[in-house]
Amino acid sequence: MTVTTLSTVDADGDAVRSALFDAVGRLDHAIRPVVAYHLGWCDEHGRTVTADSGKSVRSRLAMLAARAAGGDERRAVPGAVAVELVHNFSLVHDDLMDRDATRRHRPTVWAVWGDAVAVLAGDAMLSLAHEVLLESGSPQAVPAALLVGRATQDLIRGQAADVDFERRNDVRLAECVDMAAGKTAALLSASVAVGAVLAEAPPVTVSALQTYGSEIGLAFQLVDDLLGIWGDPEVTGKPVFSDLRSRKKSLPVTWSLESGRPAGRALAQWLAQSGDPAESELRAAADMVETAGGRRWARAESGRRVRAAQRALDSAAIDPRYRRELHRLADFIVERSA
Amino acid sequence: MTVTTLSTVDADGDAVRSALFDAVGRLDHAIRPVVAYHLGWCDEHGRTVTADSGKSVRSRLAMLAARAAGGDERRAVPGAVAVELVHNFSLVHDDLMDRDATRRHRPTVWAVWGDAVAVLAGDAMLSLAHEVLLESGSPQAVPAALLVGRATQDLIRGQAADVDFERRNDVRLAECVDMAAGKTAALLSASVAVGAVLAEAPPVTVSALQTYGSEIGLAFQLVDDLLGIWGDPEVTGKPVFSDLRSRKKSLPVTWSLESGRPAGRALAQWLAQSGDPAESELRAAADMVETAGGRRWARAESGRRVRAAQRALDSAAIDPRYRRELHRLADFIVERSA
Repeated sequence: MTVTTLSTVDADGDAVRSALFDAVGRLDHAIRPVVAYHLGWCDEHGRTVTADSGKSVRSRLAMLAARAAGGDERRAVPGAVAVELVHNFSLVHDDLMDRDATRRHRPTVWAVWGDAVAVLAGDAMLSLAHEVLLESGSPQAVPAALLVGRATQDLIRGQAADVDFERRNDVRLAECVDMAAGKTAALLSASVAVGAVLAEAPPVTVSALQTYGSEIGLAFQLVDDLLGIWGDPEVTGKPVFSDLRSRKKSLPVTWSLESGRPAGRALAQWLAQSGDPAESELRAAADMVETAGGRRWARAESGRRVRAAQRALDSAAIDPRYRRELHRLADFIVERSA
Repeated sequence: MTVTTLSTVDADGDAVRSALFDAVGRLDHAIRPVVAYHLGWCDEHGRTVTADSGKSVRSRLAMLAARAAGGDERRAVPGAVAVELVHNFSLVHDDLMDRDATRRHRPTVWAVWGDAVAVLAGDAMLSLAHEVLLESGSPQAVPAALLVGRATQDLIRGQAADVDFERRNDVRLAECVDMAAGKTAALLSASVAVGAVLAEAPPVTVSALQTYGSEIGLAFQLVDDLLGIWGDPEVTGKPVFSDLRSRKKSLPVTWSLESGRPAGRALAQWLAQSGDPAESELRAAADMVETAGGRRWARAESGRRVRAAQRALDSAAIDPRYRRELHRLADFIVERSA
């Protein structure tokens, strides 16, 4: 991660982190340490640590959007906190549903405390997201909270599709794109929109920023899917070939299946098998995706999405300094390695 | 259930049911049938049925509070829908956490569709509750949604305590009362408050109604705990002695444990055992609670709570017709058999 390209955004980081810390501090004593652990603030015994807290892309987007729209970015802080909370609510619940035992190099919440605590910690973060926005006193609290609510329904739709895909072998690329639109793009889009709305940006600017957000969201998912196959476990914190291990119908995989190429057919046969695959098998499956063209397509498509995002930005009447930052954030998304 | 005593409230029922139906209709196609099933509107294949939808106590309270406060009860409809959604979100998640396989005489959501769908259906209802309030256009939408948000955190606190109690043998009565305050009383109190706030009642009236709500909430839990031991399975839809079967530290049980009586000590010994108890054992355990005085105390305490609720009502400047209805609803709570 190239922190230097995100310097302006980092200046806002402290305000958001502090507000997020205050919000989490209000949770019940049984839930608070669990959420603090998930956010990388402490270990499972409550001891302060400096663990990976994630990339905070959503709160950065909310703050940048407020600045870009020419508003007072301090007004966007409750929005930045709310989208981080909704993102983390979905991570904690998704890890439980997907039985993912590791995130950010550490055991996931359900793996440490069990299913019930994971359900409750996620619920608490979702509710807290609304409380933070509604307590902000912002005249835009209602539209901002509605953006968050609708993005939450999109997240749920995307995750429901993801769960459904696991037991199906006939997932189409179009369905997979729709799933990514729900699971990833919706909240990224809502993040920029919430920042702009709280800064009282005009609707045309909010709309351009929303397009930017949903395009980088799809780029984000494409890169995530590439990292899920070819990412370096040391950097991603996930096992090698993790998405192939779970036979996930990711975007490069479904593209390969629809490619009509022999490697795509071989991949389909491999995906239809069950059982725990050996690492050599996973490597062979990754090679099939590569040979069928899925890796190249996903890279090219993420580039196209970033360019579409940048065109949306260029059409909006926003401060050039922050337009540049938003361009950089888009580039960061496709260039990241974790 | 004595429907005749709830006639005025039933007149509002259609407006709430219709608004709830519209709200659920907006959920994603994968989640909608699950929520409709849970609400008793269809079977697991989506075929319309007339199953038990629950007692709708919370939406009745919201509507009655709006009338009692002299407001236009139509303004309270989004609040009535929101509190029903939050209640049902918590039921779907609690059934999953507690591994309860039956509710309202039917298999629970996780038992039909699995854990992931139960998590998602609950999440969708919680988010929808906020959306319904925020889309209402009510000038009181923000305070109403904050009441719902805070009650949700209380529900989570109560359920976290409930989960914690399962692995502990040293639960005190005071902790158990606090758990019931979170798990049951908070949302009942928020239900009346939301109705009154949306009807723009003065703060002193809202406050009196909140006291009424939390007192009947504790009475409700006491009666629930009595039914969990001595309820008729034909009527409750739960297995006989269900709370003893799971060795639940309910209010009558914890009172008995603290009674200092021989039957209380025998009960403590029995609770410390593990394994699946035979029905004769469960009957013996129920007799220990009775002999120790837990059943009598819970009955008396629920009566005291109802009288405290009624005193709060009598102190408030509300329309006598609706005060009478609220009195009746309180009586219904202690007299119900399911």
